[in-house]
This record gives sequence, C-alpha cells and structure tokens, in this order.
Amino acid sequence: MTDIAHLGHVEVYTDRFDESLDFFTRVYGLTMSGQDETSAYLRAWDDYEFHTLKLTRHHTTGVGHIGYRASSEAALMRRVEAIEASRFKSIGWVDGDLGHGRAYRFEDPFGHVFEIYWDTNRYEPGPGDTSALKNMSSRFHARGACPRRLDHLNLLSADVTVFREFMETCLGSRVTEMIQLDNGRLGGCWFTVNNKTYDLACTEEHGGGEGRLHHVTYATDQREDILRAADIFLENGVHIETGPHKHAIQGTFFLYVWEPAGNRVELANAGARLILAPDWERVVWTEADRKKGQAWGLKTIETFHTHGTPPVPGKPDS
Amino acid sequence: MTDIAHLGHVEVYTDRFDESLDFFTRVYGLTMSGQDETSAYLRAWDDYEFHTLKLTRHHTTGVGHIGYRASSEAALMRRVEAIEASRFKSIGWVDGDLGHGRAYRFEDPFGHVFEIYWDTNRYEPGPGDTSALKNMSSRFHARGACPRRLDHLNLLSADVTVFREFMETCLGSRVTEMIQLDNGRLGGCWFTVNNKTYDLACTEEHGGGEGRLHHVTYATDQREDILRAADIFLENGVHIETGPHKHAIQGTFFLYVWEPAGNRVELANAGARLILAPDWERVVWTEADRKKGQAWGLKTIETFHTHGTPPVPGKPDS
Amino acid sequence: MTDIAHLGHVEVYTDRFDESLDFFTRVYGLTMSGQDETSAYLRAWDDYEFHTLKLTRHHTTGVGHIGYRASSEAALMRRVEAIEASRFKSIGWVDGDLGHGRAYRFEDPFGHVFEIYWDTNRYEPGPGDTSALKNMSSRFHARGACPRRLDHLNLLSADVTVFREFMETCLGSRVTEMIQLDNGRLGGCWFTVNNKTYDLACTEEHGGGEGRLHHVTYATDQREDILRAADIFLENGVHIETGPHKHAIQGTFFLYVWEPAGNRVELANAGARLILAPDWERVVWTEADRKKGQAWGLKTIETFHTHGTPPVPGKPDS
Amino acid sequence: MTDIAHLGHVEVYTDRFDESLDFFTRVYGLTMSGQDETSAYLRAWDDYEFHTLKLTRHHTTGVGHIGYRASSEAALMRRVEAIEASRFKSIGWVDGDLGHGRAYRFEDPFGHVFEIYWDTNRYEPGPGDTSALKNMSSRFHARGACPRRLDHLNLLSADVTVFREFMETCLGSRVTEMIQLDNGRLGGCWFTVNNKTYDLACTEEHGGGEGRLHHVTYATDQREDILRAADIFLENGVHIETGPHKHAIQGTFFLYVWEPAGNRVELANAGARLILAPDWERVVWTEADRKKGQAWGLKTIETFHTHGTPPVPGKPDS
Repeated sequence: MTDIAHLGHVEVYTDRFDESLDFFTRVYGLTMSGQDETSAYLRAWDDYEFHTLKLTRHHTTGVGHIGYRASSEAALMRRVEAIEASRFKSIGWVDGDLGHGRAYRFEDPFGHVFEIYWDTNRYEPGPGDTSALKNMSSRFHARGACPRRLDHLNLLSADVTVFREFMETCLGSRVTEMIQLDNGRLGGCWFTVNNKTYDLACTEEHGGGEGRLHHVTYATDQREDILRAADIFLENGVHIETGPHKHAIQGTFFLYVWEPAGNRVELANAGARLILAPDWERVVWTEADRKKGQAWGLKTIETFHTHGTPPVPGKPDS
Repeated sequence: MTDIAHLGHVEVYTDRFDESLDFFTRVYGLTMSGQDETSAYLRAWDDYEFHTLKLTRHHTTGVGHIGYRASSEAALMRRVEAIEASRFKSIGWVDGDLGHGRAYRFEDPFGHVFEIYWDTNRYEPGPGDTSALKNMSSRFHARGACPRRLDHLNLLSADVTVFREFMETCLGSRVTEMIQLDNGRLGGCWFTVNNKTYDLACTEEHGGGEGRLHHVTYATDQREDILRAADIFLENGVHIETGPHKHAIQGTFFLYVWEPAGNRVELANAGARLILAPDWERVVWTEADRKKGQAWGLKTIETFHTHGTPPVPGKPDS
Repeated sequence: MTDIAHLGHVEVYTDRFDESLDFFTRVYGLTMSGQDETSAYLRAWDDYEFHTLKLTRHHTTGVGHIGYRASSEAALMRRVEAIEASRFKSIGWVDGDLGHGRAYRFEDPFGHVFEIYWDTNRYEPGPGDTSALKNMSSRFHARGACPRRLDHLNLLSADVTVFREFMETCLGSRVTEMIQLDNGRLGGCWFTVNNKTYDLACTEEHGGGEGRLHHVTYATDQREDILRAADIFLENGVHIETGPHKHAIQGTFFLYVWEPAGNRVELANAGARLILAPDWERVVWTEADRKKGQAWGLKTIETFHTHGTPPVPGKPDS
Repeated sequence: MTDIAHLGHVEVYTDRFDESLDFFTRVYGLTMSGQDETSAYLRAWDDYEFHTLKLTRHHTTGVGHIGYRASSEAALMRRVEAIEASRFKSIGWVDGDLGHGRAYRFEDPFGHVFEIYWDTNRYEPGPGDTSALKNMSSRFHARGACPRRLDHLNLLSADVTVFREFMETCLGSRVTEMIQLDNGRLGGCWFTVNNKTYDLACTEEHGGGEGRLHHVTYATDQREDILRAADIFLENGVHIETGPHKHAIQGTFFLYVWEPAGNRVELANAGARLILAPDWERVVWTEADRKKGQAWGLKTIETFHTHGTPPVPGKPDS
C-alpha cells in the first residue's frame, strides 16, 4: 500500500447553501451525517467515513479543500516530511472537523488547498440507517440518484506539468492517462494513489481563473443507475450539461450536471475496470485522438471546456 | 502498494480439453493468446497480461496452480524470503511459461500450488485485435459472455484457519470478510492483496477431497451482462448451477455454471464496491446470518456445498 | 382493436390497511390519486387512468374485483350482451367509483368479480406532479421501486378449463401460453386482450381456497430496476419470496414479494417481447418442460404453489 | 384488433450489398433465413416471420418497399377496398417472395411503396437454431448487437399532413405524437396500428429528395443492450451518428448508426411503455418544445436533419 490510501473528501463552496443542500441530499442522493455553523457533512450510502463531501456556505462557489487519507500514522508522517522537503507550499497542521482528526495542509501553485490525515471518524449508522447487509456502511436508501461512494474530482490549473509534479511529490500519486498537446504542453493528467483508474484529474484552465474546480464525482454501481439519474435530474429541473455518454479517456460512463450554485457534479461508472498492473503503461492521448470525440463520437459541448467554479467575472459560462 | 500486486492467473485442469476450450472461448468469451503441448493460454479482453487462465489437458479436473504477480522484483524477493522463513512448503523457482518469466512456487497444506512472479509478458494485440480505444488491452470482441477481466478464485480446504495463516504469511494478504461457525471453526475467508474486495476465497471442504477448486471467476462490467450471459449459457446447454443472484457476503452479483469437464465457473459483478480503507474492519458472518440465505433470500443449492473439482470418487456431486 | 382494450385496475383487500398503503406508496412506489371511506386509489407514474390499484380495507386479504376497460361505448355494450347470453353469472351495472364511470359486473364460477367499463377518469397531474416530458402521464418520481404501469394479475381457480371458457366468452380474451398437465387438465393459462404477452394468468388452485388471488404485477422499464428493487425490499424488511429470475413461461423477468397483509405482489419486465401475430400459435408447456425449472434453472419454492390470498384457514403458507 | 396487425418487413436497398450484409448479420446481429438472386432475407432472433428485413442489391440506397401484415384475410380485403376507394395510388397484387404470400401494393404521394398481406411464412428454426425456450421464435444467438425484433421505420416526405391522410386512409393507422411547426405545417407524425407507441414515423423532408428513408429500427430488450451495442459499433468501425440518448418524443432510448451503404439504422428501447388507451390523447410538440433538445438535453446533430437515403446529388450529408 502506498502512503496515501485514497481520496477522502472534498469541500465544496456554495453561495446558495440551502438549494445546494437540497440538491445533494434529495436529488443527488447523499445523506447528511452532521453539520456545524458553516457546513453540512455529507456521504454516499456506502462511504465508510463520516463524510466525503463537506458543503460549506461561502461567498463563492468552487472547492474549499481536498482531503486524502493516509495508509497509517507513519505513512502520514512520511508524506509530511516529503511535502516539507519539496518546493511546494506547506500550510501546516489543522485540527480536524467533525469528520476526522488532525490534518496536514498544503497548497498547489494554483491555489487549491489539500490536506492529508490518518485519524478518521468512521460512520456509525443509527437504527434507521443500518443496512440489512452487515458489510454495507449504511442502508441503501434509494433516494435520488443514490450513488455508492465518492469517486474523484477534477481541478483546473494553468500548468498541468507543474500540477503533475505536485501530485507525484506530495501525494506519491501516479499518472495513469494524460493528454499530450501538439504545443508540447500537457492538456490533462489523470492520477491515482490506488487501484482505482483515477481519483483526481487535472485539466488545463482555459477560463483564466485561479484555483478552480471542474467537477466532483460519485460512483454508481451500474450504468443503468446513471440513465435513471438523468430522468431524476430532468424531472427536478437540474441543468444537465452533457451525457450520459462514455469517455474515451479512462472509458468511464458519465453524466454531468450543475448543482444550484453552479458547481459541476458528475455521476460515473467505470464498470469492472481497475489499474492492477504495478507497472501500468501510461496512456497518452494526442490532439488527433481527442478530435474523434468521446468514445461513441459525442463532441463535448463548449461549456465543458470553459465552465469552472468559481466563475471568472466577465467570462460567459466560466 | 503491498508486495503482491494482484492475482495473475489460474491454471485449470480438464479431462475434456476440446470441450472445455470451446466453452471458455466461444461461450464464456475468453480469447486464446497462445498454446503449447499441454495448455491453452486464455485471457479476457481487458486483461493486460498474456494470459489469466491456463487451461491444461490432464487426467483430472481442478486447479493446477495459482499465480500472483508481485509489485516489483524487490517485492518478489521479500516474499520469497518470507515464504522460506515460514512453516509452509517451498517448492522453489520454476521457469515461466508462455505468459511470464521465472516464478517461485510454494504449496499450502491442502495441496494447492501457488506461484509468485514479477516478469510478465504483456499482451500485445495484433491488427484484428486492437481496440478503438487505446486504453483497452484489446478489442471488446462481444463474443459469448465476454467478461472484462479475471476476478478471483475459491479454493476448498480442510482447515480455513490454517489456510488463512498461509495467505497472510506467504502473500501478505488480508481477510476482508469471514464466516465464524458456531463450533469455533472458520467456515470461510475472503482475501485481498489490493483494493478489490477479494481475489481469493477459501471455504471449508465438506466433500473429503484434497487440494480442490470450488470455482474461478471473471468480472463483468455490469450486472446486466450476467443476466445476458445466463441466456447464452441456457442456449448453449451449459449447466447453470445457481444464480443470477446477489451474495450476502461481499455483496457480489453472481452466476455459477459448470464447464464441460465439471469445473465450476462464475461470472460476478461487484458494482462500484472497493475496499479503500487501509484499516478495513473485517466483517464476520455467523451461522445465524447465513441462515437468512443470500442477499435476496435464495437458499444456496446443495451441490454448491459439496461439488468441487476434482470430484471425490464415490461422493455424489462432489 | 378488440372490444376490450386493456386491464384497467385491480381491487386488492387488506386487513392491514395502513401498513399496506405505506408499502405500496413508499416502498413499491405507487402514488395515491384519491381516497374514499374504504379505499385508497393508487397508480404507477405512467398509468394514464386515475387508478390501477384500489386498495380497500377489508376483514380479509385477496382480490375485490378486476376491471377491464372497453375499446368504446359500443364495444362495452357488445360485451355486456355476450356475457348476458352466456352461462356465466351476471351481476349488472354498478356506479363507478372515483376512478371511472358506470361499470358492468359479472363473476367467474370461482368467485372472482370482474367489471368492464368505458368512461374513465384520466389522471390529471397537478403542478408538483407534471412530468418534464409532456407524453408521460405524470412525473417520474423515483420513489421506491417506481414501476411504470400496471401489468397483469394471476388468479387461482379449481378448473382452469372452465376459467378459460369464461375469459374467452366474456372478455374475448385469447390464450397465448398454457400448461397441459399429464392428467389432461390445464395447469394454467396466460390470457391477453391486446399485444401484451398476457394481462391475466390463471393457475390451478392447490390450496383449497375460493376466489383467491395469486399475485398482482406492475411492469418496470428495465430488468435492472428489478434488481434495484430487490435491494429496496431487503432494506425495508419486505418478505422476498422468490427471484429475481426469469420465467420459462412468457420469458418474463420477475421478483415476488408479499406486502404486509400477505398479498403476493410482483415486479416484472418482459423486455421488448410482444404478441404481434394475429394468428399467434399458442405455446403449450408440459409437466416435463416444467420440471426443468424456470428459464435459468431455479426451482420455484413451495409457497409459490400454495400461498394465495386470502389464506385458507388451517393450511400453512396458503 | 384493427385490420392491420403490425409492421411486417422493410426492404432496404444497398449499392454495397456484401458489406451491408456483413454489417446486418455479424455486427447488427440479424440472421439470414434465405436469399434469392437479388436479396437476402433477414430477421431478428425473436421475429416470428421468415424475414423482417429484405436487403436488396440495387444501384441506390433507400427503401424498396414497406410491408404490413393484415389481421386476417377478410381484414386484408377490407383494406384493399379502402385503398382503391381512396385518392391514393394503387399498384395492385403482386406475388409474394420467400417471406409471404400475395400482397397488395400501393404508393404514397412521395414515392414510397407499401404492401399489405395476410399469408406469411412463419420462421421454422432448424436444429442449430431452436431456442431452449419453446416460446421464442429462434435461439438467442448473442451475435453482434442482437436486437429482439423489428420495431419501426422513419420515412421522409415533403408534406407530412398528406402523408398522415395516406396512413389513416390506407392502413387505418393512428397518430400518437406529432410535431406542430410554427408555420402551421406538421413537422412529423408518429403512427401505430397496435399497442406499440409507433411503428412508423414520417418527418418533413429537408434535403429535397423523393421517397427517401430516414431510418429503420430494431428493438432491444434493455437499454443496456444499446450501450453495449455502441461499443460493438465502435470496435467495428461503424459510423455512430448520435446517441445513445433518450428521445423527448416517444421517450425512446436510441442509437443511430449508418450501415456501410449509408442507410441510417437505429437500435431502440421503449422500456415498458405502450399505448393501451383506446382513446389516447395525441401529444403535440411545438417548436419551442423541440428547442429544449432531446430528453436529457442533447441537441441533435445536423446530419440527423439532412441525411436520408438515397442521398440527393450535390447535397452534403443528404
């Protein structure tokens, strides 16, 4: 096991807290396990930790911070040492919130705040929330789209090559697939710390923003769950941006919507695909490859390349 | 990453080689990447190695050996050292076959032969076999049940507690779920070396055999693939033993059939379930739990508890 | 178009009204469009009439009456004439209830009451219940199992041959598949008045009851909806009797549960199968055929052959 | 039952016969039941007639003729009388081909030839083609996309209002949904003669052609079959025009591809949706409705509005 075990949680900012919370619980199908003055702590029904999404009232949208869980206390300390020895910005230790113990924070050169932690609060289901199957983290509640677990997030940065160095250095993450642009730059990188095909993607910022979020994604058990979710979004007046369709990169079946505050949220299904090879040969996509569209030919719509959160003042669809 | 990266391949014996080969390629949907005097080397369309199933002509049915791939050459040597220092039986180095380089063999106390290796032959698709998507190991051929990759196998042993010690000591594997019998014995253990929920299960031998195989399993991308496969098996006269249904243990959606020589073969889908927690709390099933049947109530049929390969002379359905 | 257009609704009796209503609305996923002193009127989200299930407080369980809608006023009158000219029992005209206009009632020799009607109350969705797609009868609400529409029901009778004559004479229904027992009797008949493969089945009563119901069924759009429903039933403590699996007869994918009062309720999916041939050649199943089990080999459990509602005093599982 | 029972078959012209035949059998998954000098007779595995697609060598692409089966010999004669009494063009009786007996031909004002017939040749499966389930028309072969049955076709005409009169007069067909353009014209009509939601659609010709075909469609049992088919088309180099996605009109889940000669072919799944109401209230879509895109927001690509077969000389994508 690598030092970092898995993506733990994402803090998402919203300037329409009540509407966002209603979306994430009633429509998207997460459940609130707690709240404090500023935030609601949400999780999917089979997430084992207290929360995987921290939804926070804020004057902007976008990402607050990204949390990864270490593999052990010792592994955590090894990572802290590596970060402090690196050229990247350390913030230092913070107390945990409702979801976990102390965490070490650091920042990428594009303004995204990360944290790593070991002590976590496992979710303990109450009487109405305990599954009939003792190996499930809580009851399959079947409310809304009802994904199983947090899957990944996608950040935007002005220089993906630098971001890649940040991920490799600070988290020991590896690149499984990437886009090599004709101009020599990296268009995007897909990273993983475990057998998932990716837990974080970074694509090039085209909107001019700083520290922006492209999307956060939860995983469904079946593709059919995503088709069903499309009808749920439709009936609830949610803006469906694109999908359902299948990505060429990573082969993931996807659906993108915008939650009420404008943050892009995805549902995804990777089928049985995993990266099991310890010496996985990185897949490199060229611009020519990308011109073929997504796996089944869909051309991604314009907003997918420009919209991120927070929006950039004066830029349409950003 | 642990020393052992993943289950690599299973060698299955058949005393009806031609019929078994026809089943595995035309009906089950694996593809032959090579053959030698005794064996056909088969893989699922997205398995990255040369083979994941070695089908071998033999005077019996059952399992020839089980291969796990190490995470590196150094990790391989660490494991060899641990095995040699243990109370378990070392066999020693063997040359690889068509699928991989040298391998170190050892044996559990119940007669199952294991091997670990690092050097592997990646599958290189030819012109007619290259996928339109460059991140797929070969073309999705859509022939037969067409699973995506090798998933796990299930062995039988007279003492699951001892088998567990063997797996922990020799492979550094961990138990994610297990059956605790009222008589104090372990009824079964589910092991993993990575984020898969299990790659090997061992259940108690009730038929009196030695070194027997319960089943080998490949993973499909969707549950619907398994429902479709049930019709394919039906139309091809394959013996469907039980399923499709959902296991209580591990929550896997399953279908069990017997290939022409009698080896039990499964198709399974775990949805998006993974073991991401580095400190996963082992799930313990009691006999009382088991009496409820599988997840949706199906009582497992008698042969599931008695049939293994090779059959035990004089025992019906064994 | 034949004189009778389609199965319109089924009245189900319950001696646990509140629990049954909670089951049918919250778990099974029907919606209440109205109620009167004795009954709740329920429908699936794409049923076009005011109700398809009339759930009635009663001192027993079982079926109250079965309603079929005629193709026109003239067709209704032709059927009334045919019924009155037959050897079967006429009851006469009754006022409609909340769901439809006047109806003509008659009875089969086994105590099941039928009615036919033309005037109906179409369901008019209110503001919170109108679909985003104008061709849907109401909003896809995604609550519970959420089937699309009423599909069929199954009655028990002591003499299926007589019941068949009743259906052909009174409703002009046709038999699409049937079971021919070795003793010369009919074990069951599957009837339809339109292109559905069946809207009513009648199987031989083995429990000794009179006028009993075997089950009522709603149709889901996909098989995957039924697998998902199985988890919903599991998590809500509903008794799952058998399935999900595929029937040999009619090829329907099925799941049977008992609602809180004991009435058997099914979810079914027939895929794209329809009876389009005007001269469809009836399919006859023998006892030998039936011994093979359901399509994928499942042997139907004992209660499926004995349990009906109302239960017969003194008979287990009846 | 109306005079006309169902859509029986479509004759499709191809100027690349061998490639088209390979596509329809190996990739799309139909089976050839016979051939004569000019044509191959193809059917889906559960079509009950000898053929549902007649693929004919021709110097053009497009539709040869459209066959509907009558409900009886008497019904056939009633229709012939109605056609001859109408203002539409009678062609007269022709001998049947390999698939059916004599047929009466007539023509719409836009050059599409129709025929109606009663005598048909049921498909009789041979030893290798008989299903394990006696109620299936032949074995589920699982080759290619493997749809279950013919579903519908879509024709283009310069005046949909006139085409509608033709369908109502000659076939007694009814309109279930239609597009009402702001300019007062009909943009499209969806017709059915039975409980299917539609068996023929006619949309306005924008390419300037005469008697053109927009597409022919077969039905799959599940939406998941269509997602799987998308991968099959991808891996076989078939041009995927648009989809998988869900139509707003009729709510059908769809995927459109072009077979090698350029004829557009669809796979579709309607879930459990049927038109059971004898007095179905026609659904009228306005241009404003249509601007919302398909059900989940996809804007239909340009070629979908311009491409038909045969292509119009000098018009791109026509």
